[in-house]
Amino acid sequence: MTLVSTVPVSLKERSYDILVGGQLLEAAGELLRNRFGPRHILIVSDDQVAQLYLGRLRKSLLVTDYDLKEIVVPVGESSKEFGCLEMLISDMLEAGVARDWLIVALGGGVVGDLAGFAASIILRGIDYLHIPTTLLAQVDSAIGGKTGINTTLGKNLVGSFHQPRLVLTDTSLLDSLPQRELLAGYAEVVKYGLLGDESFFDWLETNGVALIEGNPGAREYAVTTCCTAKANIVSQDEHEAGARLLLNLGHTFGHALEAEVGFDSRLLHGEAVAIGTILAFDLSVRLGFCSASTLERVRKHFEFIGLPTRLPVLQGHTWRSEQLLAHMMHDKKIRKGQQTLILARGIGEAFLCREVTEADILGVLRTYAG
Amino acid sequence: MTLVSTVPVSLKERSYDILVGGQLLEAAGELLRNRFGPRHILIVSDDQVAQLYLGRLRKSLLVTDYDLKEIVVPVGESSKEFGCLEMLISDMLEAGVARDWLIVALGGGVVGDLAGFAASIILRGIDYLHIPTTLLAQVDSAIGGKTGINTTLGKNLVGSFHQPRLVLTDTSLLDSLPQRELLAGYAEVVKYGLLGDESFFDWLETNGVALIEGNPGAREYAVTTCCTAKANIVSQDEHEAGARLLLNLGHTFGHALEAEVGFDSRLLHGEAVAIGTILAFDLSVRLGFCSASTLERVRKHFEFIGLPTRLPVLQGHTWRSEQLLAHMMHDKKIRKGQQTLILARGIGEAFLCREVTEADILGVLRTYAG
Repeated sequence: MTLVSTVPVSLKERSYDILVGGQLLEAAGELLRNRFGPRHILIVSDDQVAQLYLGRLRKSLLVTDYDLKEIVVPVGESSKEFGCLEMLISDMLEAGVARDWLIVALGGGVVGDLAGFAASIILRGIDYLHIPTTLLAQVDSAIGGKTGINTTLGKNLVGSFHQPRLVLTDTSLLDSLPQRELLAGYAEVVKYGLLGDESFFDWLETNGVALIEGNPGAREYAVTTCCTAKANIVSQDEHEAGARLLLNLGHTFGHALEAEVGFDSRLLHGEAVAIGTILAFDLSVRLGFCSASTLERVRKHFEFIGLPTRLPVLQGHTWRSEQLLAHMMHDKKIRKGQQTLILARGIGEAFLCREVTEADILGVLRTYAG
Repeated sequence: MTLVSTVPVSLKERSYDILVGGQLLEAAGELLRNRFGPRHILIVSDDQVAQLYLGRLRKSLLVTDYDLKEIVVPVGESSKEFGCLEMLISDMLEAGVARDWLIVALGGGVVGDLAGFAASIILRGIDYLHIPTTLLAQVDSAIGGKTGINTTLGKNLVGSFHQPRLVLTDTSLLDSLPQRELLAGYAEVVKYGLLGDESFFDWLETNGVALIEGNPGAREYAVTTCCTAKANIVSQDEHEAGARLLLNLGHTFGHALEAEVGFDSRLLHGEAVAIGTILAFDLSVRLGFCSASTLERVRKHFEFIGLPTRLPVLQGHTWRSEQLLAHMMHDKKIRKGQQTLILARGIGEAFLCREVTEADILGVLRTYAG
């Protein structure tokens, strides 16, 4: 048996564990049987992930006599549309889903958000667990129970807080991840150092390249560290009323960038977060919260690892500051018209700033966009 | 100021009050202002209720300076379809809904289920309150946070537990309710006596007609009694794992009857529940739990008040026992293939029986259907 780290997420009767290890997919049947006993299982995956991993998961579950159903959705963000949710739910009901079934989301953020949301509303809520297959999902979206779908008016505007019963994080699954997606996920990894753990940022400066290049020990250490950080924050603030907002470091700017390009694949979420993080540190410097040398240290690490630090040149598209500002003012985290931003006093010292004016935001946007 | 009864629903941080009174619609603005302070309000209603009451509610809210938006959906069960949910959510987002807004569901069960469900998933959940306008909603569906929509495979198969922040129950709104709907709601009123409160059943034997005929005091007393009973049950068992199942007295049989006629208006939910209640008492007699004279007492009261006690004759439709049994075996409350039924040892003594066989059920169905 391979070594497994257990990261608890403490949420009273909704508490659960994140298991992090190098060969967990093969152990899934045994792990589920030990924790949940015999249960009907319904796997939801996307066609790309299914091709890579569904066979291995099925084999592991069938060895332990699980009764198994499978639903495969198309890969990509478009599966988070209302029509796809309706189709998935219809397929789940056709499969005979009952209140005591267990939904297993096998995939990245899209599959986790969609299957988790479906599990939260079918028969008024049934159990699910997530086996995240991307770095971004392993360190971020699979933890904390945020589920949801998109509407034509914006991303994740419909959803729920529905905690999984277990997260099985097999870091060896990252071996098949394209380099660009790996780097995008790394933007969320480095976020945990930047928002509250300078020593982890130090570690990443030394070991980040090994992580990207596939060193198993570096991956397990980094993923476990991120999971622990996120679990602590979520335990304090499940519904994002306070501490959990810190996880949005780089995200409000990043979200505006994604919205501007229509959330298409020219700019991945993690890439937008990386640029957004630079913008947040830059604004922190401008407002006198943070030293210029800190911003330079962050920028240097991003460039070293291969993350973007400025707005990408996209054919036929011109970035406009006013347009980006408009996107930021439509964020669902805005309360009573105020813009809340996560800024930083230093590395590992992020904080929630409610007094940022539109002029401040426009000022920093203007040095990056037209 | 009119007299108001306050019925608390105790659910820790999700606790709320049901206010029952005779002129609450006019007081809504003041009541909301006192409890929630200034908030953006979005009213969701159906076109039939809106015509009767939206003007009065709007006037009350505008007097107290509320910022108000309104969305009106078509009356009837078809508004609980997936497509209507998507449209409602889209309209809510277009209206600018934010996390600190308050959704007000003005209507019966359909509006409450639909608007409550939309409130539970928009922006991952925002506050809502319900102003129930039918007897059935006032004594049952508005209390306890069950929300949901229908799918082609069945009713309420998608939904959530999302408690309202307040229920404003104005019994004078029942004055405009058609007699048939009033009687259908009465089936849920009498349920509370039958399942756990014989003295309330005694009271109904004497005062049920006054309630139906519009006596304000009788209505307020009966509605308050039902709300108190349901609030106590929901407080014990929010997610329907035990005590709350008792509220399904008459419902498993009734649901099969509704399913058989395709949930159309030839058989109202309350009418199906009335017949289902007779079936449940009849089965209780057959299994030796309950005396035949008790069944007769229930049947006599139903007939006296005008509730159906046998399967209605529907043109072109023949009731078949086997078909009804098949519907019952597809109920979402079935766990591991067992059928759980609510039976009774007497009036006010309902209990959850897990040992009912298909043959027992078929036996009682055969005396009512072909």
